[in-house]
Amino acid sequence: MRIDLNSDMGESFGAYLIGADEEILRWVTSANVACGWHGGDPQVMRQTVERAKALGVAVGAHPSYPDLLGFGRRAMQITRQEARDYVLYQIGALRAFTEAARLTLQHVKPHGAIYNVAVKDRELSLGIAEGVKDAGGELILVGLPGSEILKAGKELGLGVAREAFGDRAYNEDGTLVSRKIAGSLLTDPELVAQRVLGLAQGKVTAITGKEIRLQADTICLHGDTPGAATIAKTVRKALDGAGIQVCPMGTFVGRAA
Amino acid sequence: MRIDLNSDMGESFGAYLIGADEEILRWVTSANVACGWHGGDPQVMRQTVERAKALGVAVGAHPSYPDLLGFGRRAMQITRQEARDYVLYQIGALRAFTEAARLTLQHVKPHGAIYNVAVKDRELSLGIAEGVKDAGGELILVGLPGSEILKAGKELGLGVAREAFGDRAYNEDGTLVSRKIAGSLLTDPELVAQRVLGLAQGKVTAITGKEIRLQADTICLHGDTPGAATIAKTVRKALDGAGIQVCPMGTFVGRAA
Amino acid sequence: MRIDLNSDMGESFGAYLIGADEEILRWVTSANVACGWHGGDPQVMRQTVERAKALGVAVGAHPSYPDLLGFGRRAMQITRQEARDYVLYQIGALRAFTEAARLTLQHVKPHGAIYNVAVKDRELSLGIAEGVKDAGGELILVGLPGSEILKAGKELGLGVAREAFGDRAYNEDGTLVSRKIAGSLLTDPELVAQRVLGLAQGKVTAITGKEIRLQADTICLHGDTPGAATIAKTVRKALDGAGIQVCPMGTFVGRAA
Amino acid sequence: MRIDLNSDMGESFGAYLIGADEEILRWVTSANVACGWHGGDPQVMRQTVERAKALGVAVGAHPSYPDLLGFGRRAMQITRQEARDYVLYQIGALRAFTEAARLTLQHVKPHGAIYNVAVKDRELSLGIAEGVKDAGGELILVGLPGSEILKAGKELGLGVAREAFGDRAYNEDGTLVSRKIAGSLLTDPELVAQRVLGLAQGKVTAITGKEIRLQADTICLHGDTPGAATIAKTVRKALDGAGIQVCPMGTFVGRAA
Repeated sequence: MRIDLNSDMGESFGAYLIGADEEILRWVTSANVACGWHGGDPQVMRQTVERAKALGVAVGAHPSYPDLLGFGRRAMQITRQEARDYVLYQIGALRAFTEAARLTLQHVKPHGAIYNVAVKDRELSLGIAEGVKDAGGELILVGLPGSEILKAGKELGLGVAREAFGDRAYNEDGTLVSRKIAGSLLTDPELVAQRVLGLAQGKVTAITGKEIRLQADTICLHGDTPGAATIAKTVRKALDGAGIQVCPMGTFVGRAA
Repeated sequence: MRIDLNSDMGESFGAYLIGADEEILRWVTSANVACGWHGGDPQVMRQTVERAKALGVAVGAHPSYPDLLGFGRRAMQITRQEARDYVLYQIGALRAFTEAARLTLQHVKPHGAIYNVAVKDRELSLGIAEGVKDAGGELILVGLPGSEILKAGKELGLGVAREAFGDRAYNEDGTLVSRKIAGSLLTDPELVAQRVLGLAQGKVTAITGKEIRLQADTICLHGDTPGAATIAKTVRKALDGAGIQVCPMGTFVGRAA
Repeated sequence: MRIDLNSDMGESFGAYLIGADEEILRWVTSANVACGWHGGDPQVMRQTVERAKALGVAVGAHPSYPDLLGFGRRAMQITRQEARDYVLYQIGALRAFTEAARLTLQHVKPHGAIYNVAVKDRELSLGIAEGVKDAGGELILVGLPGSEILKAGKELGLGVAREAFGDRAYNEDGTLVSRKIAGSLLTDPELVAQRVLGLAQGKVTAITGKEIRLQADTICLHGDTPGAATIAKTVRKALDGAGIQVCPMGTFVGRAA
Repeated sequence: MRIDLNSDMGESFGAYLIGADEEILRWVTSANVACGWHGGDPQVMRQTVERAKALGVAVGAHPSYPDLLGFGRRAMQITRQEARDYVLYQIGALRAFTEAARLTLQHVKPHGAIYNVAVKDRELSLGIAEGVKDAGGELILVGLPGSEILKAGKELGLGVAREAFGDRAYNEDGTLVSRKIAGSLLTDPELVAQRVLGLAQGKVTAITGKEIRLQADTICLHGDTPGAATIAKTVRKALDGAGIQVCPMGTFVGRAA
């Protein structure tokens, strides 16, 4: 059994600091690095890439809608071609820093609203996947199991990684319970760790109490919630203690084609 | 005898169109493509790269200060490290598009104010050159003969290209006459073509009337002046007619080290 | 009979020029001036306000989503509170220029996508109307007849102006025919002028051929289409010739409450 | 004896929080509110204005170069006209929020690099002062004693306020000791309070040990340094304890003309 732990990183911007990057980086195996469009700037990108490399954490791009004011969390109606070009631009910008650090860019995980909209929007998903394919270099595309974006990635021959959340409640059909519903977000480190242990084995208890199957390649650990560092540490310790191999997705996710 | 003709391209942004790219692209051998910081956007970058490729024009990055409002034409006090990171970011973003088009990025020519400030600013020049070196791939750095930026590039082992202007008056010491001085800008196509012919042979008549030596590898043709397309065509025809080989700088400029 | 003619103005930005402002300003009575979020910048705003004043054209604010890259033409999911604050910010910025020019700001017409989304989105419309109300000064809110935004404006006690389009086809229910449908856009100056004459009298021929009633206070003349200036002139001459009074909406639209 | 205490406020942006606004607001009498160009956004502006009003703190505009990435701390070469238009835009945007809150905008204090450059740059200072004058409403312009900006303000008939710093070392000529020099920044709350007491009485001990005269109307309390809230509280208590009236500059600074 093996699983990847990922977290969003490098979202500070200019004079603005956000997240607990240094702490979280110690426990994850993949870092999703902001590319300047919702957060991140060239100096933050360089520092984040170097820190990740020093700790042996694999690096991926975390592209966003062009919305710094909204931190990439607001849906925008962009075309398939715009999505493709925006994603390619951001991947290229980050890759310059990973290459300068002699690191291979591992994956692409869309950020915030573009990630969420792409779950069900086939045109947007195709645009994103085309941008990733344009970038070349066997990048892995990360998304929700069953999402349009993973379908699009597979159709284009990309490697895809299925992402799950240890701190989110699930419906019986494997979709996430809306954040607006009470109990959708879990904050107890031990509970989150137990759920991640289950997810690493392909199962999770839905909000109804029923255990469902859910295959995941990578588990997202949020870095911007209170107690994020404690949760990350607890999860990692639990996985290590259970003998589950925690390693970057690139070591076990293959190309679809 | 051989010379490169370069022009700034892809500076349109969103709904805003600028420049006479399609016309100018027919006559130049190198295109300096904006990277989104003073002009250009991901869609414009893709289109510009594809057009350049279709016409056999080599592509370089045209990075700028972060100043869309000022079109990159205003000096900003940034640090050496900021310059390095800003340049690397922009090169990476553009290179994603050249690689997607199966083109090799050829050169880097700083845009506007950062180009001008770097002429005499060693720290800024070192930052720019470091960013170009970080990017790897044997990129050629373009600047004024005798400028700090070319010195910095050579010190770091980069290939460098000396740029001259057919439509600008020169002082006897080989520096450009300030645009504020009458007669500093030439607009007659035939006159510009004659000066370019001279420059291709290492000489130019200074504003004082004295002929001076000026070694150049590439001549800049402005694309945003009235009659730019006519000048570009006239210059190219003159060079072709004189048996001077007009070809991308990458075919004859080598690495410094 | 009286009618207002309005047009979007001042959408140039930095080095980028767009629109035929000087020409169109001669024929309209109200100018919707961009506030820097989809187009326009402080220098353009000052110049546009001064030009409008010189020609006796009334000035309104033309606020947008924060999307310079997309020229404000892409829907974004913003909250009611964000809409309120964004609109207030932009009105304030423009009003500083109208007050400096000793002009009274007359109206607010949302731009592009936020105008279109607000037609049916009550929450967004309330946010916009609240922003206009916050701004004070008896500003008139401009929108489509029957739209949520005009309802919201009336509920808050704002004066509202109903806008119609001489160059767009109408459905029988008074809604606009989608731009995706053939025949939705009219470009013949004489035809547009005839339709404007009808609109000034409260009627228009729907795309089905049936004449419908459509009460409008102001007619939009697009400035960014080919032949825009000719259409504007033809429309104005037709209205003047027919003895219809063409005057700023502020001279005849009153407050709702 | 009376003095104003001012602090920069409302520099958070979107998801990014910065400063200790709520704490500092309890001790100052004037708030310099960011206008969105180096920090601040419409929602932050509204909240900051409302908080200031609730605590009886007077509000001023804190306009900046257009440089969110650099937090307005980098010099940019802008023209006098650009300075004028940029300042007017930002004042107008903020004033919309103060007027919506039924507050009168009191002053304008340029932010960061534009404040510093204006100390010696007459053209820039004239541009800023013209923007303030354009805005009308008897705004007070804040700057260093002896600076070009206060000269420009006086020439244009504006009220001006001389600003001093309790946490900065002074040269014998009344200029600030460069931050690059050891001992230029003071962090001990008691020491800062003692210096502010002296400044309120028109004197301060220079870095050489000599006591010099320095007339100030308002003392800046930084909000972004460690211990800022403690320093603010200590300073305020010391002034109150010494019977010095601490009140907004608008209550005692008059118009120059």
